Amino acid sequence: MNKLSKFSLLALFISLSLPIYSKGPKYIFFFIGDGMGFGHVEATRLFLDETKSSENLLFLDFPIVTHAVTQSADHRITDSAAAATALATGSKTANYTVGMDSSRTYALTPISKQLKKTGRQIGIITTATIDHATPAGFYATQPDRNLYYQIGKQAAESGFDFFGGASLLKPVNNNNPQDIDLYTYFRKMGYTICNDFKNYDKSAKNGKIVLLYDTLGTKHIPYEIDRKSGTLSLKELTQTCINRFMNNPKQGFFMMIEGGTIDWAAHSNDAATMIQETIGFNESIKVAYDFYLKHPKETLIIVTADHETGGIGLGIKDSNLPISLLQKQKVSEENLSNILYQLKERKSSPSWEDAKEILKKNLGLWEYIPVSYSEEAELMRIFDASFISKRAKDITNLYSTVGPLTNAAISLINQKAHIGWTSNNHTGAVVPVYVIGAEQGQFSGRLDNTDIPNTIRKITGIK
Amino acid sequence: MNKLSKFSLLALFISLSLPIYSKGPKYIFFFIGDGMGFGHVEATRLFLDETKSSENLLFLDFPIVTHAVTQSADHRITDSAAAATALATGSKTANYTVGMDSSRTYALTPISKQLKKTGRQIGIITTATIDHATPAGFYATQPDRNLYYQIGKQAAESGFDFFGGASLLKPVNNNNPQDIDLYTYFRKMGYTICNDFKNYDKSAKNGKIVLLYDTLGTKHIPYEIDRKSGTLSLKELTQTCINRFMNNPKQGFFMMIEGGTIDWAAHSNDAATMIQETIGFNESIKVAYDFYLKHPKETLIIVTADHETGGIGLGIKDSNLPISLLQKQKVSEENLSNILYQLKERKSSPSWEDAKEILKKNLGLWEYIPVSYSEEAELMRIFDASFISKRAKDITNLYSTVGPLTNAAISLINQKAHIGWTSNNHTGAVVPVYVIGAEQGQFSGRLDNTDIPNTIRKITGIK
Repeated sequence: MNKLSKFSLLALFISLSLPIYSKGPKYIFFFIGDGMGFGHVEATRLFLDETKSSENLLFLDFPIVTHAVTQSADHRITDSAAAATALATGSKTANYTVGMDSSRTYALTPISKQLKKTGRQIGIITTATIDHATPAGFYATQPDRNLYYQIGKQAAESGFDFFGGASLLKPVNNNNPQDIDLYTYFRKMGYTICNDFKNYDKSAKNGKIVLLYDTLGTKHIPYEIDRKSGTLSLKELTQTCINRFMNNPKQGFFMMIEGGTIDWAAHSNDAATMIQETIGFNESIKVAYDFYLKHPKETLIIVTADHETGGIGLGIKDSNLPISLLQKQKVSEENLSNILYQLKERKSSPSWEDAKEILKKNLGLWEYIPVSYSEEAELMRIFDASFISKRAKDITNLYSTVGPLTNAAISLINQKAHIGWTSNNHTGAVVPVYVIGAEQGQFSGRLDNTDIPNTIRKITGIK
Repeated sequence: MNKLSKFSLLALFISLSLPIYSKGPKYIFFFIGDGMGFGHVEATRLFLDETKSSENLLFLDFPIVTHAVTQSADHRITDSAAAATALATGSKTANYTVGMDSSRTYALTPISKQLKKTGRQIGIITTATIDHATPAGFYATQPDRNLYYQIGKQAAESGFDFFGGASLLKPVNNNNPQDIDLYTYFRKMGYTICNDFKNYDKSAKNGKIVLLYDTLGTKHIPYEIDRKSGTLSLKELTQTCINRFMNNPKQGFFMMIEGGTIDWAAHSNDAATMIQETIGFNESIKVAYDFYLKHPKETLIIVTADHETGGIGLGIKDSNLPISLLQKQKVSEENLSNILYQLKERKSSPSWEDAKEILKKNLGLWEYIPVSYSEEAELMRIFDASFISKRAKDITNLYSTVGPLTNAAISLINQKAHIGWTSNNHTGAVVPVYVIGAEQGQFSGRLDNTDIPNTIRKITGIK
């Protein structure tokens, strides 16, 4: 054996015995506020500034602040699947495509799989279902984001250490119902399925875990504005995942944490619900920040969004922005619609006063927020068309179908707060990027969304 | 004389003999895109990307990219006077106030006056009039931005070296018409007034200069979309000012260059005109950038906005953003309104076909951009109300009054391009900040607009 060979063997021995993650931050948090543009963040900051209902947004003070372009390979306005693919793999793809190139021919590799190979534990967390587009981008390769069963199956096959979210959307393959159901499949692949987050540690002492709000196909963890205290939240999921991963602190971790329902509320142009979701998202970032304070040299936190949703505008006419009155809204549009549906079911011929009482109680209209006679007349007309003559159709957005009266009332309270929206869909706006921690300086200048995973690769030595 | 006194005298001598600007960048460019939010910039980038009609926006590649909060002392949505005061003095004030505190009691000091004292030449340039709110913030102290005569008088008293813009709005004091007219006053204060920019150097070889598009009170330099080639532009003003200042290169300079009419087009929700103004703004930045390339260690360029105008949203329904069709719009809303007014004057009973021909020719509607029958019906209805039965009133925004048909047609072409707007006024959105050059690293993290002049103070040693 010549000197060179000896040296090579020694190098090989050293590289095998060292943790591979020794390059770059040991602990990486990648927060994605789905649909969270600059307007959503600023609306939330202003709301908190005026209502003092919680501490203001922590990530605004991160030392690195820039923005990213979100367009996909085939559209100026990305969908969440193409955006997740860009943020996870560093490559652009076509809308609706998950983890594949835009011709849907070959698979792209997400940083999450590469970071798993460096020894880091991998956690994928969302307020939506774990098979939804954004989390899927970090483990799945599918030509269509709607292939929920196939995506869920790839989650089970990922070997990732922690999945947290609302549920699985399609545990049964509708095309081949004899195929294994995904809950069984996850267990077969070594996962413990748990929907009692307070006691998850008893049921899953070691090993891989899927922590869900329920196993009933619930589409999202309850909106913050509707959520009962003590129930599962994004913050709880984040804290739980950190606790679990710190049972093996030597391994390090990578966590993707999605505030998925900021987007859903924005699709509904429901500012009050969107703001509370952004506050909830910030709560989960606080948990990561507390962790960072204990491990400042080894931790990196990135906060960004996959795209902007709704084209939110902070002003509709003059210099006033009475955004604090959104605190009078006590329920999400989704929930308000359910309450009004119940009225329809409860009474064969409900009166306008019945409906008005519900709007008063849940939105503060009339009681706290003045409503003009013409505004009331318009709501009353819609009530008639929807509850009495039943001519008016429900209004469907990407993630919700609500009654016309609900839609009109939520639109009215947004107008009262001087919040405007240009769309019920995504827009081509750039999105904010906030970074703190080890190697933070690597994120500089105006970014493309693909620059974010590619920079993570660079600082962690992934080729 | 003891040793200490000798030392003090020596120190005094040294400080007097050294150029005071020796601290910090010798040449400072402060570009303000009035009303230019993230949406305006991104709309322009996308338009240029698709049409290749000019090079893309230079400032997007600046190494320092962040954003700034714009709210004023008394409103979440600032006006241009309070925003200019914040950007010039580093202190917040109330809306409509120029260079004074929010109680309108005492004067605030702008960095431009302080930088003048360091020996730097000072240039104030805008596409609007030089007495308009944004330039005024850099030299005037007035309780109300509408005191144009008083503001113009303070321009003449500023001692600044170069003023460039459209005109003076109120050269005569309407309250006291016997007061000196401002053109005379400027001359008395040592300025040469010039409105022949190609030959300005002959009429004003040395000394202070006011270079105007005209002296007739024209409210803004023609919009880029309407401008005839060879006429004065923001780029020309910028280049002229640099040339002039480089006659005394030892002195250094500070230039505030405002793309004032980006805002005006945005108030009209006229995306095509706004985009061309932003391109024109970028052209003036290119001139500064070329200068920076020759003096990289001594030059600092800051590009930002005073506020966002219009709540522009890049999308109104689906994933498409057919923004390139805005190139079919050949005139500004303002100009289109004039053309349609001329039709009214030319013909006692103009036909819908006459009007349609004008819309075809100037906006490309029907010819290049399909118009549905219901869309045409709506335009025809408005034509009837405006041209025939004359029931419809003109539509007035902050800076324009246009006919209803013009307004509807511009709104239609914006919809066709999938550009939405939430307001005809300013909004509470944060605005982009781009920096390159000496001491660029001092601009970091999320900023308040007041941080910008305060950082300029810090790096130039102004207390």
